[in-house]
Amino acid sequence: MSAAPWITYRPELKVLDCTIRDGGLVNDHQFDDDFVRAVYRACVEAGIDYMEIGYKASKKLFARDQFGAWKFCDEDDVRRIVGENDAPLKLTAMADAGKSDWRTDILPKQQSVLDMIRVAFYVHQVSEAVDMIKDAYQKGYEVSANLMAVSTAQDKEIDQALEVLAETPAGVLVVVDSFGSLYAEQIEILVKKYLEYAKATGKEVGMHAHNNQQLAFANTIEAIIHGANRVDASMAGLGRGAGNCPMELLIGFLRNPKFHIRPLYEVLQNCLHPLRQKVEWGPYVEYNITGQLNQHPRSAIAARAGDQRDRYVEFYDKLISDV
Amino acid sequence: MSAAPWITYRPELKVLDCTIRDGGLVNDHQFDDDFVRAVYRACVEAGIDYMEIGYKASKKLFARDQFGAWKFCDEDDVRRIVGENDAPLKLTAMADAGKSDWRTDILPKQQSVLDMIRVAFYVHQVSEAVDMIKDAYQKGYEVSANLMAVSTAQDKEIDQALEVLAETPAGVLVVVDSFGSLYAEQIEILVKKYLEYAKATGKEVGMHAHNNQQLAFANTIEAIIHGANRVDASMAGLGRGAGNCPMELLIGFLRNPKFHIRPLYEVLQNCLHPLRQKVEWGPYVEYNITGQLNQHPRSAIAARAGDQRDRYVEFYDKLISDV
Repeated sequence: MSAAPWITYRPELKVLDCTIRDGGLVNDHQFDDDFVRAVYRACVEAGIDYMEIGYKASKKLFARDQFGAWKFCDEDDVRRIVGENDAPLKLTAMADAGKSDWRTDILPKQQSVLDMIRVAFYVHQVSEAVDMIKDAYQKGYEVSANLMAVSTAQDKEIDQALEVLAETPAGVLVVVDSFGSLYAEQIEILVKKYLEYAKATGKEVGMHAHNNQQLAFANTIEAIIHGANRVDASMAGLGRGAGNCPMELLIGFLRNPKFHIRPLYEVLQNCLHPLRQKVEWGPYVEYNITGQLNQHPRSAIAARAGDQRDRYVEFYDKLISDV
Repeated sequence: MSAAPWITYRPELKVLDCTIRDGGLVNDHQFDDDFVRAVYRACVEAGIDYMEIGYKASKKLFARDQFGAWKFCDEDDVRRIVGENDAPLKLTAMADAGKSDWRTDILPKQQSVLDMIRVAFYVHQVSEAVDMIKDAYQKGYEVSANLMAVSTAQDKEIDQALEVLAETPAGVLVVVDSFGSLYAEQIEILVKKYLEYAKATGKEVGMHAHNNQQLAFANTIEAIIHGANRVDASMAGLGRGAGNCPMELLIGFLRNPKFHIRPLYEVLQNCLHPLRQKVEWGPYVEYNITGQLNQHPRSAIAARAGDQRDRYVEFYDKLISDV
């Protein structure tokens, strides 16, 4: 270890903003254009590498009148915000295995302003994920493989999935702590495991953290220390439930002078702070509890949405009696 | 490294609750007796090792009619809450160098229900701190040496202070990240440095983290991993500015079956949640900024107390132009 590695930087480290994509899970992706445009401008001005503008979700499964445009990322909607995206910032959309008509809804790259498709899947969906990865790659995109909820998968399952994914044209394998349940030592083990498979085939490893235990930023730093070169964050940590790694903390930590933090404070002040008056996200106690129990946050989201919020004892007792 | 160290525990690791002491900095220690009693009961029931019930502050410097009882911890006030403290929980009070009439106000141990005195000081006050440590030890107390704002001290100063402190009868040397500015790698270096001095004279090392960058819990884990056996936390992270390491997260992480988390959810629900409707603490953006800049949070506290709160850009511009 050098004397003070935290004051230098790795040029190959790239940052992805998932404010609209993951954040949209708090409001059914009902962002108005001004909000999305402000996040886009902030990403460009801050020197962020990728912006994930939403999902490519199936219109058969998700009603267009219930969800906003960023659930589907139709080309016209994306271009209404970014034009021809005349900026170094690359654009990504996420497609979920089992919830996306990816064969038809993901256009050939020549027809799209998107640069990357991130394929999200649970470990039992790895076979469809492989097909999705190949499809997106053949259409001309960079591709990322995001194995969700890794904290609930068995070691052997993770190894098997990584073995299969290593053979795909995905350029990135992302460690995804969907439930915000992992501690630093577990992040270290997972990043090293992913790197073992990734490096052999020239891939990078990424980190997508959730903030259920106030560890999203810390675990992202931990992943970086152990070699992850692709990391996710969102403005003010906007994201489902407890939210994500806050971009303003991550950029404050990174020392590459290509990053600029002031544009982030602008979008926080003008867009995220007003949004917080309308919708809620962050590491509330209910999310601490589901994170500690390594559970999906849906019970916590339900508790905080109703009149049972902040009744921690009852919530804890219920979850403990359910397991 | 063993396979899964995070699921076992070190019996020698002890937890200190600083809810009333550090938390009192948000409300001039104006807690009513019911609140203090509820925190005390929660500490006892949760199996916490130490509870810091307040300061031993000078009544010449701090007016009794402006500050609550826990700024001074008069024996009668403490006993009104804890009686003879007929519990395994030990009680501590903090005395600040330069702000305490410690010679007279700290009673001989035989006359006090307190078990430990924690001496807090800046690096330039180390000589008074040594006198305070000796005095408290000779009076019969366990003693802890808390060198504050270590992130702004020079390496040579820290070494010199630790060399002097190692010769005192203090049983604990605490790494204090007063500004919440330190990252994991810096915590590792400091804990290892403190341990070097501490181990030679049979002392333990502690960790007192602040949450300015949402790293208080993570840095406390980091300190534990590297050998700190005394760690501070507070209920709901209550503490000045961004607050401290949340006790409910720490106890959820620790695997010693002597700890019980449910009593914490009770005090959070019944006392801390209602308090949050009246006073504010937590890792707001202004605290992120002072933390990143390694500054005292006073400017952020002032900004959030007035009508300039959540004007992050102006706040950032002002701090940047001041440095």
